[in-house]
Amino acid sequence: MQKLNVTQKLIKSHLLEGEMIPGKEIGIKIDQALLQDATGTLVQLELEAMSLKKAKTEVAVQYVDHNLLQTDFKNADDHLFLLSAAQRFGLWYSRPGNGVSHPVHMERFGKPGKTLVGSDSHSCAAGSLGMLAIGTGGLDVAAAIAGKPYFVKMPKVWGVKLSGKLPDWVSAKDVILEMLRRHDVKGGVGKIVEYYGEGLKYLSAMDRHVIANMGAELGATTTVFPSDNETKRFLKSQDREEDWSELLADEGCEYDLHEEIILDDLVPLIALPTSPGNVVPVSEVAGKKISQVVLGSSANPGLRDFWMAGAIVKDKSVNNDVSFDVNPTSRQTIQNMIDNKAFGNLIKAGARFHQSGCMGCIGMGQAPASDTISLRTMPRNFPSRSGTEDDMVHLCSPETAAASALTGEITDPRDLEKLYKMSYPKYVQPEMEIISKEMLVAPLEDGSHIDLIKGPNIKSLPNIEKLQENYNVPVLLKMGDNVSTDEILKAGAEVLPFRSNLPEISKYSFTVIDDTFYDRAMKAKNDHGGHIVVAKENYAQGSSREHAALAPKFLGQVAVLAKSYARIAWQNLVNFGILPLEFIDIADYDKIEQGDMVSFKNLPSNVSERKEISVIIKKKNGEFLEIPSKHSLSDRQISILLKGGIINEFKEKLEEKDLHK
Amino acid sequence: MQKLNVTQKLIKSHLLEGEMIPGKEIGIKIDQALLQDATGTLVQLELEAMSLKKAKTEVAVQYVDHNLLQTDFKNADDHLFLLSAAQRFGLWYSRPGNGVSHPVHMERFGKPGKTLVGSDSHSCAAGSLGMLAIGTGGLDVAAAIAGKPYFVKMPKVWGVKLSGKLPDWVSAKDVILEMLRRHDVKGGVGKIVEYYGEGLKYLSAMDRHVIANMGAELGATTTVFPSDNETKRFLKSQDREEDWSELLADEGCEYDLHEEIILDDLVPLIALPTSPGNVVPVSEVAGKKISQVVLGSSANPGLRDFWMAGAIVKDKSVNNDVSFDVNPTSRQTIQNMIDNKAFGNLIKAGARFHQSGCMGCIGMGQAPASDTISLRTMPRNFPSRSGTEDDMVHLCSPETAAASALTGEITDPRDLEKLYKMSYPKYVQPEMEIISKEMLVAPLEDGSHIDLIKGPNIKSLPNIEKLQENYNVPVLLKMGDNVSTDEILKAGAEVLPFRSNLPEISKYSFTVIDDTFYDRAMKAKNDHGGHIVVAKENYAQGSSREHAALAPKFLGQVAVLAKSYARIAWQNLVNFGILPLEFIDIADYDKIEQGDMVSFKNLPSNVSERKEISVIIKKKNGEFLEIPSKHSLSDRQISILLKGGIINEFKEKLEEKDLHK
Repeated sequence: MQKLNVTQKLIKSHLLEGEMIPGKEIGIKIDQALLQDATGTLVQLELEAMSLKKAKTEVAVQYVDHNLLQTDFKNADDHLFLLSAAQRFGLWYSRPGNGVSHPVHMERFGKPGKTLVGSDSHSCAAGSLGMLAIGTGGLDVAAAIAGKPYFVKMPKVWGVKLSGKLPDWVSAKDVILEMLRRHDVKGGVGKIVEYYGEGLKYLSAMDRHVIANMGAELGATTTVFPSDNETKRFLKSQDREEDWSELLADEGCEYDLHEEIILDDLVPLIALPTSPGNVVPVSEVAGKKISQVVLGSSANPGLRDFWMAGAIVKDKSVNNDVSFDVNPTSRQTIQNMIDNKAFGNLIKAGARFHQSGCMGCIGMGQAPASDTISLRTMPRNFPSRSGTEDDMVHLCSPETAAASALTGEITDPRDLEKLYKMSYPKYVQPEMEIISKEMLVAPLEDGSHIDLIKGPNIKSLPNIEKLQENYNVPVLLKMGDNVSTDEILKAGAEVLPFRSNLPEISKYSFTVIDDTFYDRAMKAKNDHGGHIVVAKENYAQGSSREHAALAPKFLGQVAVLAKSYARIAWQNLVNFGILPLEFIDIADYDKIEQGDMVSFKNLPSNVSERKEISVIIKKKNGEFLEIPSKHSLSDRQISILLKGGIINEFKEKLEEKDLHK
Repeated sequence: MQKLNVTQKLIKSHLLEGEMIPGKEIGIKIDQALLQDATGTLVQLELEAMSLKKAKTEVAVQYVDHNLLQTDFKNADDHLFLLSAAQRFGLWYSRPGNGVSHPVHMERFGKPGKTLVGSDSHSCAAGSLGMLAIGTGGLDVAAAIAGKPYFVKMPKVWGVKLSGKLPDWVSAKDVILEMLRRHDVKGGVGKIVEYYGEGLKYLSAMDRHVIANMGAELGATTTVFPSDNETKRFLKSQDREEDWSELLADEGCEYDLHEEIILDDLVPLIALPTSPGNVVPVSEVAGKKISQVVLGSSANPGLRDFWMAGAIVKDKSVNNDVSFDVNPTSRQTIQNMIDNKAFGNLIKAGARFHQSGCMGCIGMGQAPASDTISLRTMPRNFPSRSGTEDDMVHLCSPETAAASALTGEITDPRDLEKLYKMSYPKYVQPEMEIISKEMLVAPLEDGSHIDLIKGPNIKSLPNIEKLQENYNVPVLLKMGDNVSTDEILKAGAEVLPFRSNLPEISKYSFTVIDDTFYDRAMKAKNDHGGHIVVAKENYAQGSSREHAALAPKFLGQVAVLAKSYARIAWQNLVNFGILPLEFIDIADYDKIEQGDMVSFKNLPSNVSERKEISVIIKKKNGEFLEIPSKHSLSDRQISILLKGGIINEFKEKLEEKDLHK
């Protein structure tokens, strides 16, 4: 019998379509679905458009963790809408302030051996429990909730062997930062990272969450850990021992790619602005003055992380020039932090406690002061994501964050031994956590009588245009490598509240890169029927938000022409009817300029037949040139694209009454 | 010897100028000053403009409690600026997240027998400790910090006798709501409310804070309580027994006005939208569905208030449709709430905890959903103040708030006895509170070497125009009674961050009433050199924010013509060079319309000589008519007005080197 790794076991047990050959599209059965509020309103509108009777997944949960500021009616209206939709469609509802989706899901619903899709790029965090958990666009999650398979190109499985044991003052965050240091933000594209080896036994389930979570920053399809005795201990501490089952790689199994991390050799690491891939040892930048430290987010959500920071600052005072912001992960975390004294230690040292949720991680508050450094235990530091332009956000471990909060400058936590005569605090896991379920509203047996509550900012989805035969449209923007979805459609307090209002949110498209984009796009739509944009490698990395495809589509975006794409965004483009073209020869990138006009002929048939797509460029001086391009879409995706996206496909099927049954 | 009441004793011991005759201007020595961040940045810029060396008050504290959301760089920049300014000018600095100014001040700095001015309208709350504490515009506070007297018209003293004892389920909030029910939002104008009588002994110092705080909503100059044994107990519980001194009214003293409240007769009360004066018994509106309950703010800041709500919801769950938001008053409150189990009871029942500060009270987050009722223990419910247009904010006690959070509808807390077989929880004061001083940064002995840290949003004050001889300007707006400063210049997340940027914040002038105002004002400034506005009684009630005068002045406002003015706003208008004119015959109000042109002749000499000010109106049909008006300014105020306001006066004095010494 073939020896299988954990990833292969998970996929094999859920395979509905295709073959497990890297690069080939497969369709897998989905057991669980996760929604957060910033993407979830659109998903619920999609479920409504699909006339869904009741969720067909084993568990589907609508979390509310992104938009908690409520600076006007929009957030609060969305909360009421999401509750009504969860009740109507048979989802759990995790109320505002209950906590960050990924750790709450792991604690309350995660189950070894199961599959999950989530409309949040960090949904991969559930891989910590031996799940196959994939972050994806909302439409894919809507389809999974409706009982459809999830389609993805079979990734390569990248075995990462963990040897040895972490030194004092070095923790799980430094492991994933080491992966990012080695492989940067696109090193994981097309791969599933599977951790194994002796070093695993020193990593708790929540430590594994930290590593799995930021697999998203590697660009990986997901991250997988085995389900072992530590997984069992964790589920027991959550009063869910019965949900545990063992899931281990077969002895002698193979991986497509190999890596080893010797844990003993790791040092405290830090990601410099403005990419999670800009990783250096903390010691290299130690001594720089800081104005803010933020603890929290799905990237360091565990009790250990807060306890450790609390133990470091205990009986000391945070530097006067530092705002020490603490976002407890969840209500359950708060209750346990009070119990284990972390709360008291942090607040006594000067911490500023915020509500449980993503907060500054998604630019909802906590923006740092101008021209100052902010240290965060969060997963991302893309430009302006913090809410402050030209920000200087650094990403690090709770140990580095707490040490720096005390000194007011970037500090290697190992220096605490000298500075404060401190030895590394030893965390002891509680046998049982205090469990909090009060703000989880259970699904109804039958929700068909529930009316959706739609406030004035919740707008129906617009009609989406099908792919036309011919185009002659301008190149509105030429970008470089690793453009993030935060640059395509920024996050933050100003923009996120419009996520159920497409005409309004579209105005923010690409404003981080070029604030004339919206006006130029509207003009191009009127004058030429649309536009294209050009980029290099790993286009649209980062968040899973599908608005980064939907909004440009609304502004008339016909195609993107790039060297390569981040996985989720590539699917989102197709799902919303934008053609993701690839350069055949990257040297052609230099031949095309912003302001050029480009023509496409017979596009639908060329796409369907997988012909080379010729891009005819008319330069400003009247010169013509032609460059070749291609796409990598599956038959399923081609069919979706030609219809103008998956919403149109659903509508067609609705007309055939296919989904009414 | 004359028998004196507490108010008279406080004023007499601080009188520097004038006579204690109601209506006459007096100048009093100021011992303490309180600043919050929303008004404080301007005050610090004023101190800078005055070249102040060091604060001359005994205690001056810069709090940061209003702008904590930090949706971009502006709030965080302001925090760094305020810290640098506090260090430069010799003020205490209460760091962001340390807590709401008024209760923190009472706990850490308040002292019986002292005077205080604060650039926040609820500064009167310190009257709970036997202080004379007056909320006023920032320029007045700047002057006090610089050692100048504070000028105010000697108010009438309104003795309110409290008889009997509060029934179960009725608390301090209902006492002040009863005052508002009887006298509405202008019932206290020109008066100091002094509470006395046997009923006092059942009101703790923090209960008195609740009543004193919302004296601002009555329009009162301030509220005064005696300093008695309860005051001593309170200061002892704050580890400050040595700061106590007795201050009681003389037996047989007189009051200018009389009132009695028989506490036994009170019932739970609630203020309906959109005025704190719209008070009815809770039972009259019981049963209406709600979407939000917010606990907190300076109007119900005490440990008892949170404990009581916690005791009511203990072991129960908040209704699924209600967002139960809790804003703990301060870091100290959080620590004591953990200690007395209020924190645990609230969170277990489903409360959503927020950072310590004003939050939704000033529209910084927590905006309610559209077309739904929000119940708050806060002091104000002026239109749109919550951040949601056409909001339906109701004000009530913690008992009513907690009861309603459980049922999901407005609920008379007395009904809990039937609904939940509950008896009224009995609160026991802790002998000693856990004391928190970690986030109070002490003033420097000499701060002259400290540089002010000014972010890009902190702009210097503009030049302000002097009063001209003649004007011919349009009436840009005609308003009714009780227009609030929230309508003149709204609070909230969108506007407050611009408080150190006058050109930007001016764009929001009067937008709540008429969103064409800014454009029309700029046009009138260009075409005619300014404008006036017209109102009825109690113009510009509410917040002390001086931007409600400064911004209209920046837009060219020459005068307001109204029946009467709220005290703080009236002073602010003069301080910034706007003439507050009063109708002599209110019937003339009907003769003037929006769009009319009005002329003034020889304005400076007519104002100085206290002549009747003739308002010559040219109607749209070309008809002329003339109505008489007057002002009630003191000589000191006339001098300020003619110079274009107090900033110009400071500048003049600076030129004379008067303030450089």
